Amino acid sequence: MSRSSKRRIKKIGLPAESLVYTGDKKEKNPINLTLINYDATHYEERLLQQVDACLLYKQKPTITWINVDGVHDLNLIEKLGEGFAIHRLVTEDLVSIVQRPKCEDYGDYLFIVLKMLTYDARQNKIIPEQISLILGQKFLLSFQEDIQGDVFHLIRDHLRTGKGKVRHRGTDYLAYCLLDALVDNYFIILEKIGDSIDTLEEVLMRQPGQDVMEQLYQLKRELLFLHKAVWPLREVISFLLRRESSLIQDSTMPYLRDVYDHVVQAIDSIEINRDILATMLDLYLFSVSYRTNEIMKVLTIIATIFMPLTFLAGVYGMNFEHMPELSWQYGYLLIWIIMITLGVFMLYFFRKKKWI
Amino acid sequence: MSRSSKRRIKKIGLPAESLVYTGDKKEKNPINLTLINYDATHYEERLLQQVDACLLYKQKPTITWINVDGVHDLNLIEKLGEGFAIHRLVTEDLVSIVQRPKCEDYGDYLFIVLKMLTYDARQNKIIPEQISLILGQKFLLSFQEDIQGDVFHLIRDHLRTGKGKVRHRGTDYLAYCLLDALVDNYFIILEKIGDSIDTLEEVLMRQPGQDVMEQLYQLKRELLFLHKAVWPLREVISFLLRRESSLIQDSTMPYLRDVYDHVVQAIDSIEINRDILATMLDLYLFSVSYRTNEIMKVLTIIATIFMPLTFLAGVYGMNFEHMPELSWQYGYLLIWIIMITLGVFMLYFFRKKKWI
Amino acid sequence: MSRSSKRRIKKIGLPAESLVYTGDKKEKNPINLTLINYDATHYEERLLQQVDACLLYKQKPTITWINVDGVHDLNLIEKLGEGFAIHRLVTEDLVSIVQRPKCEDYGDYLFIVLKMLTYDARQNKIIPEQISLILGQKFLLSFQEDIQGDVFHLIRDHLRTGKGKVRHRGTDYLAYCLLDALVDNYFIILEKIGDSIDTLEEVLMRQPGQDVMEQLYQLKRELLFLHKAVWPLREVISFLLRRESSLIQDSTMPYLRDVYDHVVQAIDSIEINRDILATMLDLYLFSVSYRTNEIMKVLTIIATIFMPLTFLAGVYGMNFEHMPELSWQYGYLLIWIIMITLGVFMLYFFRKKKWI
Amino acid sequence: MSRSSKRRIKKIGLPAESLVYTGDKKEKNPINLTLINYDATHYEERLLQQVDACLLYKQKPTITWINVDGVHDLNLIEKLGEGFAIHRLVTEDLVSIVQRPKCEDYGDYLFIVLKMLTYDARQNKIIPEQISLILGQKFLLSFQEDIQGDVFHLIRDHLRTGKGKVRHRGTDYLAYCLLDALVDNYFIILEKIGDSIDTLEEVLMRQPGQDVMEQLYQLKRELLFLHKAVWPLREVISFLLRRESSLIQDSTMPYLRDVYDHVVQAIDSIEINRDILATMLDLYLFSVSYRTNEIMKVLTIIATIFMPLTFLAGVYGMNFEHMPELSWQYGYLLIWIIMITLGVFMLYFFRKKKWI
Amino acid sequence: MSRSSKRRIKKIGLPAESLVYTGDKKEKNPINLTLINYDATHYEERLLQQVDACLLYKQKPTITWINVDGVHDLNLIEKLGEGFAIHRLVTEDLVSIVQRPKCEDYGDYLFIVLKMLTYDARQNKIIPEQISLILGQKFLLSFQEDIQGDVFHLIRDHLRTGKGKVRHRGTDYLAYCLLDALVDNYFIILEKIGDSIDTLEEVLMRQPGQDVMEQLYQLKRELLFLHKAVWPLREVISFLLRRESSLIQDSTMPYLRDVYDHVVQAIDSIEINRDILATMLDLYLFSVSYRTNEIMKVLTIIATIFMPLTFLAGVYGMNFEHMPELSWQYGYLLIWIIMITLGVFMLYFFRKKKWI
Repeated sequence: MSRSSKRRIKKIGLPAESLVYTGDKKEKNPINLTLINYDATHYEERLLQQVDACLLYKQKPTITWINVDGVHDLNLIEKLGEGFAIHRLVTEDLVSIVQRPKCEDYGDYLFIVLKMLTYDARQNKIIPEQISLILGQKFLLSFQEDIQGDVFHLIRDHLRTGKGKVRHRGTDYLAYCLLDALVDNYFIILEKIGDSIDTLEEVLMRQPGQDVMEQLYQLKRELLFLHKAVWPLREVISFLLRRESSLIQDSTMPYLRDVYDHVVQAIDSIEINRDILATMLDLYLFSVSYRTNEIMKVLTIIATIFMPLTFLAGVYGMNFEHMPELSWQYGYLLIWIIMITLGVFMLYFFRKKKWI
Repeated sequence: MSRSSKRRIKKIGLPAESLVYTGDKKEKNPINLTLINYDATHYEERLLQQVDACLLYKQKPTITWINVDGVHDLNLIEKLGEGFAIHRLVTEDLVSIVQRPKCEDYGDYLFIVLKMLTYDARQNKIIPEQISLILGQKFLLSFQEDIQGDVFHLIRDHLRTGKGKVRHRGTDYLAYCLLDALVDNYFIILEKIGDSIDTLEEVLMRQPGQDVMEQLYQLKRELLFLHKAVWPLREVISFLLRRESSLIQDSTMPYLRDVYDHVVQAIDSIEINRDILATMLDLYLFSVSYRTNEIMKVLTIIATIFMPLTFLAGVYGMNFEHMPELSWQYGYLLIWIIMITLGVFMLYFFRKKKWI
Repeated sequence: MSRSSKRRIKKIGLPAESLVYTGDKKEKNPINLTLINYDATHYEERLLQQVDACLLYKQKPTITWINVDGVHDLNLIEKLGEGFAIHRLVTEDLVSIVQRPKCEDYGDYLFIVLKMLTYDARQNKIIPEQISLILGQKFLLSFQEDIQGDVFHLIRDHLRTGKGKVRHRGTDYLAYCLLDALVDNYFIILEKIGDSIDTLEEVLMRQPGQDVMEQLYQLKRELLFLHKAVWPLREVISFLLRRESSLIQDSTMPYLRDVYDHVVQAIDSIEINRDILATMLDLYLFSVSYRTNEIMKVLTIIATIFMPLTFLAGVYGMNFEHMPELSWQYGYLLIWIIMITLGVFMLYFFRKKKWI
Repeated sequence: MSRSSKRRIKKIGLPAESLVYTGDKKEKNPINLTLINYDATHYEERLLQQVDACLLYKQKPTITWINVDGVHDLNLIEKLGEGFAIHRLVTEDLVSIVQRPKCEDYGDYLFIVLKMLTYDARQNKIIPEQISLILGQKFLLSFQEDIQGDVFHLIRDHLRTGKGKVRHRGTDYLAYCLLDALVDNYFIILEKIGDSIDTLEEVLMRQPGQDVMEQLYQLKRELLFLHKAVWPLREVISFLLRRESSLIQDSTMPYLRDVYDHVVQAIDSIEINRDILATMLDLYLFSVSYRTNEIMKVLTIIATIFMPLTFLAGVYGMNFEHMPELSWQYGYLLIWIIMITLGVFMLYFFRKKKWI
Repeated sequence: MSRSSKRRIKKIGLPAESLVYTGDKKEKNPINLTLINYDATHYEERLLQQVDACLLYKQKPTITWINVDGVHDLNLIEKLGEGFAIHRLVTEDLVSIVQRPKCEDYGDYLFIVLKMLTYDARQNKIIPEQISLILGQKFLLSFQEDIQGDVFHLIRDHLRTGKGKVRHRGTDYLAYCLLDALVDNYFIILEKIGDSIDTLEEVLMRQPGQDVMEQLYQLKRELLFLHKAVWPLREVISFLLRRESSLIQDSTMPYLRDVYDHVVQAIDSIEINRDILATMLDLYLFSVSYRTNEIMKVLTIIATIFMPLTFLAGVYGMNFEHMPELSWQYGYLLIWIIMITLGVFMLYFFRKKKWI
């Protein structure tokens, strides 16, 4: 949480519309531009480091997908934005890493902000990465916060080999493919969380300790995080479904509806997992107070039996000169009888109270 | 929960629209096609294992209901889908077992996904099974995840014997009958859960232990599960009621409204049961802390009475050479009087505090 | 809860639209038909046991109110339904006791399901009874689940004596009167619950025990039950207010609005009572843990004072041959001084900690 | 709560539309009619006890405000209602004290029900009083449940002296002034509650006792009560703002919007106060269990140190004939060394566990 | 909370529309008027203390921004209001410090109330300051509650130096800049709160004490406060986005949408922080009861081991004359063996119970 606030703050104190990179990825590395130009019959792929080469493809009738890995090179982004006639505010949002998933219609193009999530197994944490799409008639620009890998390799593969329908359709179908890959990826994370919950559940049923509570807390935070990333996505896709933007063809609608279903399903899963965690917390709290209760019973039974007996023993350990009982022949036997009777009576009393 | 995520994951890494069976039912068994062709005067029932025979019935003016038990034979499903001109995405959804209940209008046909629930008494668990319907003008295709039994035997019976109105009406009425049977079945499960809650309530009022808590937890999870299956059904039916799809005749509307009422009633019951469980949890937690309090009282009373007395006894058990009290004639008597007075005073004090 | 599920289950396995009585009232008793035919100048009241006599009144220009006590005689209900041209689904709902309050417009008549509640003082429980109304232009059919008394005797009285406006108005005004009587009755139950809450509150402030918790739980369940009965009534009346069914005259609207206000008020009361119960539960739980805390203090003070003293006494009760203190002249005095000083210091320590 | 139910019940069993006074104010006192007739240049004020004198003012072109203190004189209210052609249901509502704030448009006049609240410092309780307004073109009737004082004295003052705009505007502006005075009064009550919360907060931070909990409970109930009175007022005013009733002039709209803002602000304050109380309750519960924990620590430390020591002392207090240690020269010294070592070790153990 | 109620109360008892300053800022200081007049080519800045000089700028075709620091000089505010033909109710709201953020369209101008928040590090508290904007065609009036600094210095800087677009656009863009600066400032506060939460979290995981709870409580209150200030802002901006007021140009819409996104993001952050705090509270409460449980275990183990042993030692410390065991040669050895066996058995018992 505090991370997203911190990032925004970098920008405060600068003129509105100034480009400020608000992320924390390795800013040293150069940005890679991957340009893919294709139609049903044609396929070209180039790895560039300059914007100018890209702009040449702008007029082509074939479809151009430019993927930008890393958004920290402000000059490059600015140049690209100007080259494709992107509104200044959009360019600004591209390099600002704290955006909420959203979709805006600028007439000639749609601007879509998404979150790609990866699960860092070592840190046991969800790592977000911002993906922005600019969807035009003949071009799709995608910007990834991080220069490292993504979840789109299959789509690239299909483009190269011509598998599936992606080479036969427009930019909207390509955007759908990217969306679909992102959403499918959420389910991998959901499964990891589901597994953690199942493990935790088993631990809870056996012998829970303090660390279980911290894991519960960690899982709750991760689910909050996931919820925050997935929930606005619903709005994004229903925006695409609702709006008759000429950029989205009718034939793509069923596919978007399909992604929408998946997103709703992911939200459902998140909600149910949150409910399950809440119930587990209750179960945990209960089991602690139940065990405290059990411990108290043991303590009370022991104390209630032995305190009176110890008192009695103490009495006959007193050194008064005149204690007639001490000299009785069967005094010692008698006191044992009394003490055992008392103990047995106490045990009977607790049995009746159903404590033992 | 984790199960549904796992299933979805099977598909990741494949081209969009590839058919992937995501269930875990016995994939070895062959799929059974049960074809029923009828109108008011005519009735024919065939058990097939090939798609081609089905397609012949497509053009007939009479109504054809094809029930598919098991969806793991991808070739067969694909062929059937192509035979009835079903959209590729629908075919894909048919074999994907993680769908949420939904209804989609594809013009020529409606695609409806439902969940059939059965209560496994041995495991004390709700077992879901996905039922998909494709509702055309003259045909109804139903796909069941599992090849084993369903809740539709009565409908088949009515079709065979011509009881009821089902032979006199269209596919929409047949679909209503299936829906109605599914929803009626939810009430059987709700009753089982209601019975479990009643039993639990009685146990709670008597002597609750740790296992009660685990049963509460189990019931809560089952209700969450039920909620997840029933809630979207409301949308499905209100979609059918709202949309003037020519596939749903006006005369069927009152019946759908009736099912809708039942679904709302089932949701009501689920909600109330959840509220009751929440209240029972509170009652349980309370009763544990109340009993801890009672136990503490016993312990404190015993300790408060015997600790000072044991101290006194200890004092006169000391071996100082010069302890004048020890040689008093009535010293021993006196100390008994003091100790009894002290004990009685303590008891009086606790009585005044209303502890005993 | 489980009761309503059980009732529905009676019907499963029968053809849709089959009439099945799902209640548990004394099915032996014959059904009574009370027919009241009136207009401003005319009044006739008959007690019938056959349907045919009723049907004669169907054509009359005067208003006919037929009240049916008990709905377990399926033949009679079926005949009556056919006589008044009632839709089969409505007839089915009439004899099915698990309906949720609802209102349906069938053009020629409105079908309204309501719940009459009575408070059983012996069982301390709310007893529901289903009331169904069929409101036509010139007739009103009312069906009561139970053959025993209702809350409509005053309305009958006004009809007989011509008091109030009811003789001068249509069936819609009569239906309003019935609705109003039902809703007024809810307030009697609410008052009973309010009294129970007040009593419980006083008990809570004094000395709460385990039984208080069970009463709280009981009240919560009754409020849940009431909520379930009253909440859908709001929809029913707003349906009547919204719909310009020709069966509801404009002059009746203000009266319906009045009933609507009462229902909203009843819902308000239920909600507030639920909030108060929740707060009382918190108060109760708190007071238990507060008292546990107080008890712990007493225990700890006693133990902290007497344990070290008993230890000291124990030390000088040891039988070592060489214990120089034992032979000091003022050893015994000294040990008393030490012990008293220690005790006083402990008391001072606890006073400073504000424990005493 | 139970009070409002009780009042409604007084009416049950009477014909609909019968006038029944449901309040509990001193019914002996005569009702006072205060008539104020004014326009920009003219002002007349009369104190009446008969309705007839009022009716004369009905036709006058100047504005007439009739304030009725006390609504228990049913004859008078009925006569007044008939004189001003008020719908029977309205008259009925006027004398029924359990109304929820509401606004109804009867064409010629608006009927508004409001709640005036006063804070009874002695009982530490909010006292509600029902105010009903009937707003016509040239007349405003206001009915107060109680014959004692109200919060409108300033408005009367402005009318008398001609200060402000009220003499220059219509009845709608006068109604606005009354509304504004009522809403301003809510803030006085909110401040009192705010002060109580601040005081409670300080007590909580210092040394909370059982009574704090009861005060929390009391405050929660008062806020519930306030919420119930203020929340429907929002609907009332937005009803006035929405409806283009000719009785509300456009120039009055900004004033109503202003009152609306105040009501929303009051609701905000109530909600925030409820949230703060909920948080305080958590804080309180926590602080009790935290203190229990601290007390337990003290007890356990004392017991863990002195129980083994007392045991050791007990061992050497045994009277066995053959106990070689007893006759060792440094036996006594040794046992002291052992005991002190044991005690120090225990203290070290607790320090390591961070208990001390 | 109580502060805002108190302020409102100052006004009660005065005629509606009377100007009453409800703040508590240093009322002695004179109000400063800062007038900035600019267009693309021209820039003029004046510091005034009289209203008359301002009014001269009213007719100018260039844009005039008048910033008023402090609103306690009622005469000045009134004069300014009259000079710019501001509705009396607006002027009243300007000097009333308890306004909720809102936006009202008065045709010729928009009236916007906002809250500027600053974080007082010493008091660890959010300090609100009310900012009101009156947005006309050619003028923008801004009123600040406090005469001290604000967050607009950068905007002034851009106006002076001509950086950014602000000199080239209308008053609506200027208003956007102010809004943007305010909202950006919220993120600074959110970051401070986020840091506090992170710190608290670490403390919680280590060794929590009573003060942690108070900090949690403090943070919860601050978040409530922030929520109250930010939430209505959403309505304000969506009001501006929705309404086609001619005062807001189409070219400004994307900028407003941008601010809207930021506000939604701030609300998201607040909600998530509230959820995290709630989870932390649960974690805290759990960890206290878990530690109580651990402490109880230690106590019970010690007591259960040493109480029986001490009792045994007590028995053989009794002074009965006839205690045969005392004279056994190996009696002392035997009793040690018995006691050690008993202790070991107890330890084994607790190990089996998994207490140690």
